[in-house]
Amino acid sequence: MNDHTVSLRSIQEAAQRIAHSAHLTPILTSKTLNEWSQNQIFLKGEHLQRVGAFKFRGAQNAVTQLTLSRHQAGVVTHSSGNHGQALALAAQLKGIPAYIVMPENAPRPKIDAVRGYGGQVSFCAPNVSARESLMAEIQAKTDALFVPPYDHPSIISGQGTIGLELLKQVPDLKAVVAPVGGGGLLAGVATAVKAMNSSIKVFGAEPQGADDAARSLAAGHLIPQDSPNTIADGLLTSLGSHTWPIIHRLVDDILTVSEPEIIEAMRLIWERTKQLIEPSAAVAVATLQTNRFRNEFQSCNVAVVLSGGNTDITNLPWDRQ
Amino acid sequence: MNDHTVSLRSIQEAAQRIAHSAHLTPILTSKTLNEWSQNQIFLKGEHLQRVGAFKFRGAQNAVTQLTLSRHQAGVVTHSSGNHGQALALAAQLKGIPAYIVMPENAPRPKIDAVRGYGGQVSFCAPNVSARESLMAEIQAKTDALFVPPYDHPSIISGQGTIGLELLKQVPDLKAVVAPVGGGGLLAGVATAVKAMNSSIKVFGAEPQGADDAARSLAAGHLIPQDSPNTIADGLLTSLGSHTWPIIHRLVDDILTVSEPEIIEAMRLIWERTKQLIEPSAAVAVATLQTNRFRNEFQSCNVAVVLSGGNTDITNLPWDRQ
Repeated sequence: MNDHTVSLRSIQEAAQRIAHSAHLTPILTSKTLNEWSQNQIFLKGEHLQRVGAFKFRGAQNAVTQLTLSRHQAGVVTHSSGNHGQALALAAQLKGIPAYIVMPENAPRPKIDAVRGYGGQVSFCAPNVSARESLMAEIQAKTDALFVPPYDHPSIISGQGTIGLELLKQVPDLKAVVAPVGGGGLLAGVATAVKAMNSSIKVFGAEPQGADDAARSLAAGHLIPQDSPNTIADGLLTSLGSHTWPIIHRLVDDILTVSEPEIIEAMRLIWERTKQLIEPSAAVAVATLQTNRFRNEFQSCNVAVVLSGGNTDITNLPWDRQ
Repeated sequence: MNDHTVSLRSIQEAAQRIAHSAHLTPILTSKTLNEWSQNQIFLKGEHLQRVGAFKFRGAQNAVTQLTLSRHQAGVVTHSSGNHGQALALAAQLKGIPAYIVMPENAPRPKIDAVRGYGGQVSFCAPNVSARESLMAEIQAKTDALFVPPYDHPSIISGQGTIGLELLKQVPDLKAVVAPVGGGGLLAGVATAVKAMNSSIKVFGAEPQGADDAARSLAAGHLIPQDSPNTIADGLLTSLGSHTWPIIHRLVDDILTVSEPEIIEAMRLIWERTKQLIEPSAAVAVATLQTNRFRNEFQSCNVAVVLSGGNTDITNLPWDRQ
């Protein structure tokens, strides 16, 4: 975790670090999807990444930089979702402990998944102060290094490796859409893509019920997320001090979609491509299904990052509507 | 539809005929699946085939052999499932009409899918005599050619192209498992695989609730299916006069699994590989999850045909248990 800034070079170095452990995920296409959106859509299958989400890239980039002599005490983070699994696996591959703080109301499958990768789970009340005090306690006791879920140059650079791959995998790429929560994925991808070809548009996709990135970009300054409400549980967090300036500088726009649009897009991907994606990934797909963003996408080659596939397959949203 | 017998040659010819229209489907792997089954499992992704099932191969092999001058009247079949979609698409690509007889209680998504590929749907009461009389009526009126769902050499040869691909795609292949309903897939794959390497084991996978193939093989003569009862709706049919002799001669064994085992295997594939497969495909996976067939699979490289991905994603079986 020596990166101090995010750059094309830091992302290229990350790509070398994770090359032997992360999957080069495939590009998937669907004629139906192309017809409906009137674009050529290239789905980047990060739901097929290790741990089922892009988060492995950032965690692995951070952990591979640690030295066993200095960091045998391990790593610690807080996560109710994919970052916890990603850090647990990265630590397991390195042979060091991973302490994962999870809210006591975290879903059982997420807890089991972290433990399945050897993570040591501690539970706290589901609020920030309880989380911070438990984190501090674990750090004091174990001397483990905190690896944040998104707001760190090593994490952002790791996620940015997706941008490098898109330039190689997609012919005549004109636009990229990635979901934005904390902004690690979007900031990393924007850095890589814009450095290699500044004419490619980079868009963030965000739920209307958690639209801090859209409001921040409109205001020109960071507006933290307040009481988010969306099915896209990976996108509840606010932009951070590292991700916001990059997104502000490089991202062309943030496109927001409604909850019914997210659910419809998720169902479309499940039924038509037989790929099981999580709601956060469907947010990016949804921007290409609505007519509101016709000006942004004009019969061009668009890459859409399917960010992950970790979702509860019981009690699905279309059964609840 | 000039094939009179099924052979390695008829399958190789089928492969050439469908090469430009069918997908060369990928092989998928999962570390979790390997660990749980203690074999190296290679999943053949026919759920990613056109129309979402292997059935396109056989239908396309049959339809490409038709000549426009003689067969402009089109094709007709009966199907409540994937064969109807497959034949509709094959006919659409050829530019001839497809008449699909469906039971009046067929699920709406299946009807919509057939129509989406340009098929002309006619409904009959859900029994064999109603189906036969409507088929005869349509044939008399249109002069369309009947393309059966499985019991024809052209269909079997088309499905057998999967066997050719497995030999190329899977290193050191020791065993193949394919679900068996009417037997077109299993007979075709067995013919291809055994002709190329007779030491490779070929197994059929069947629900205990529709086990006519297992009972036929045990008895040494064809025993038709009587009142089948299984979630695997693609495997309700009996073996036919073309498929049975091939299966009798070439298949090493038929392995049967229970309904809970099918549902568990389907859920495992959905959750672990993020691939949406239908219950009939899960039947093949389930044979590798149970301990009953340890002697059949001993830490070897096994190919499992994920036959299709067309299933209703509302009201899933694990929500009903």
